[in-house]
Amino acid sequence: MTGEFEIIAKYFAPLAAGAPGAEGLSNDGACFTPGAGLSVAVTVDAMVAGVHFLPGDPPETLGRKLLRVNLSDLAAMGARPRGYLLVTAFPKDIEEDWIAAFADGLALDQAEFGVDLLGGDTVSTPGPLTLSLTAFGEVAPGRALSRSGARVGDEIFVSGAIGDGVLGLKALRGELTHLSEPDRAALAERYRLPAPRVSLGRALSERGLATAALDVSDGLVADMGHICDASGLAAELHAPAVPLSVAGARALEADGSLLPGLLTGGDDYELLFTLAPDKAGAIEALAQDLGLHLTRIGRMSAGQGVRVLDGAGEEIALPSKGWAHF
Amino acid sequence: MTGEFEIIAKYFAPLAAGAPGAEGLSNDGACFTPGAGLSVAVTVDAMVAGVHFLPGDPPETLGRKLLRVNLSDLAAMGARPRGYLLVTAFPKDIEEDWIAAFADGLALDQAEFGVDLLGGDTVSTPGPLTLSLTAFGEVAPGRALSRSGARVGDEIFVSGAIGDGVLGLKALRGELTHLSEPDRAALAERYRLPAPRVSLGRALSERGLATAALDVSDGLVADMGHICDASGLAAELHAPAVPLSVAGARALEADGSLLPGLLTGGDDYELLFTLAPDKAGAIEALAQDLGLHLTRIGRMSAGQGVRVLDGAGEEIALPSKGWAHF
Repeated sequence: MTGEFEIIAKYFAPLAAGAPGAEGLSNDGACFTPGAGLSVAVTVDAMVAGVHFLPGDPPETLGRKLLRVNLSDLAAMGARPRGYLLVTAFPKDIEEDWIAAFADGLALDQAEFGVDLLGGDTVSTPGPLTLSLTAFGEVAPGRALSRSGARVGDEIFVSGAIGDGVLGLKALRGELTHLSEPDRAALAERYRLPAPRVSLGRALSERGLATAALDVSDGLVADMGHICDASGLAAELHAPAVPLSVAGARALEADGSLLPGLLTGGDDYELLFTLAPDKAGAIEALAQDLGLHLTRIGRMSAGQGVRVLDGAGEEIALPSKGWAHF
Repeated sequence: MTGEFEIIAKYFAPLAAGAPGAEGLSNDGACFTPGAGLSVAVTVDAMVAGVHFLPGDPPETLGRKLLRVNLSDLAAMGARPRGYLLVTAFPKDIEEDWIAAFADGLALDQAEFGVDLLGGDTVSTPGPLTLSLTAFGEVAPGRALSRSGARVGDEIFVSGAIGDGVLGLKALRGELTHLSEPDRAALAERYRLPAPRVSLGRALSERGLATAALDVSDGLVADMGHICDASGLAAELHAPAVPLSVAGARALEADGSLLPGLLTGGDDYELLFTLAPDKAGAIEALAQDLGLHLTRIGRMSAGQGVRVLDGAGEEIALPSKGWAHF
């Protein structure tokens, strides 16, 4: 195995080439200067082999997913991404080819999202491959979106499509055999490479549209519950309104029992946000600007907790409200 | 075991109480606003049970050490600490008492160093306990200390005492039985709770004294090598000048074979820095201001590599130049 410093020089330093403040990863840390008067938004997410990803997942997409998950958190705050730090805890028997492919994937997403590696730590572990990524962004002071500002009567919107993450995981596990191969591939791609809604988050912040926002990572219902808890309110979601992808809709049509899993499965990385009812027109304009579906799926009310209603207005019983580690 | 969200609410949210931008850890990330016109310094370090610490190490000091190691990196850049993010990957069987003691330790150091928890991620792992901490600071643009600015003829200084980290680890492993119990306890304390030289780093940056700097984590000789590599120069270190603590000096006096280990062992978290010879007077004044020993241990020269000389001017052969993960 190549040494720690050689790995950094060969595979990670090139990812920092665009960030002068990273000094080629030769320093104790890195510096960057936010735009004048801007606040810094920070977030971190970790992924453990066997917990957050399948041990055989391709290295080309693994780093990209971790980066995107963090960019999704920045999007949920309305922040513009600036850079990131990466911690890799590698088992001693990791292959150099694996690291090369992992870094190649990150390079693709750095170009796509306009961020650079600023630094990190490369260590060994006797346990499973463990990755941790800290992302930095910038946002106007006081304009960061949060979970706590929803008001009674606010409309609840979600971007894109819900459920592809959990369906993609099923497809990769060999389930969903009633779907066509292209549908399963499309869902797997969405699981491996979620699309962080960076432009949407920035627009919601800059245009002052959202009263509360987060990204759907734990599951639509659980994350809706986070907004309710933080805002001291209740929410009612209309299951038939929840937007699905073409492949997701076909999966549900063929097997209606998938519905609870779609609503609670998580790994969607869409933005879930609330806004005053008189802002609905502005949301339509924003959806057109971004070329992104923004769908009204419910309403905030006094009380607590999340109720999910079917087409007849009956509450749907959900076996689980989302993913928890313990 | 208490759930993920309960752990965060019960043990980690109180650590974020002093940081308004953390919103009680209820958000996707956190915000902070650097002082007007300042750059942001970022650094991250990870610790894996069985690799970076002893599995039985007390939780009270473990989090503090991880925080201090990162504050030491900020010190090496001359940055003022502002806050941190914490990733905890806990084995499923971790005891709640362990987490409580871990958080109590962090609270002590937050008060000592004036930083707050801003956010993080709490996940489970089938492997060893793994911790990762990202620290943020602020520094005047262009004034961050780096490893690359040393010049031929610069004096080499180091703060505090070298070798206590590796001796402390030996003491905790039951070695160094020729030392008194108080000496072994003092060394163990230094291993478990290094003193990040935050005030020194800031002063070196603000007063424009150092041409290059880093903190001694890989080992004095290996870290001197990092400055040499980054600056394109060579260094000559005088082993008899390397400052030792009282306990460290007694250990070496009783067993001269410890010397190579002291020079290469790492985990010191002292600042190693270079400066123009005409700045020696300013360093004396700074040492007095800070109440901290600052000791001249060598000189930069043209060439490459680090030579360590004994009292007779002969080069000391060193079996290893520092810690590497792979």
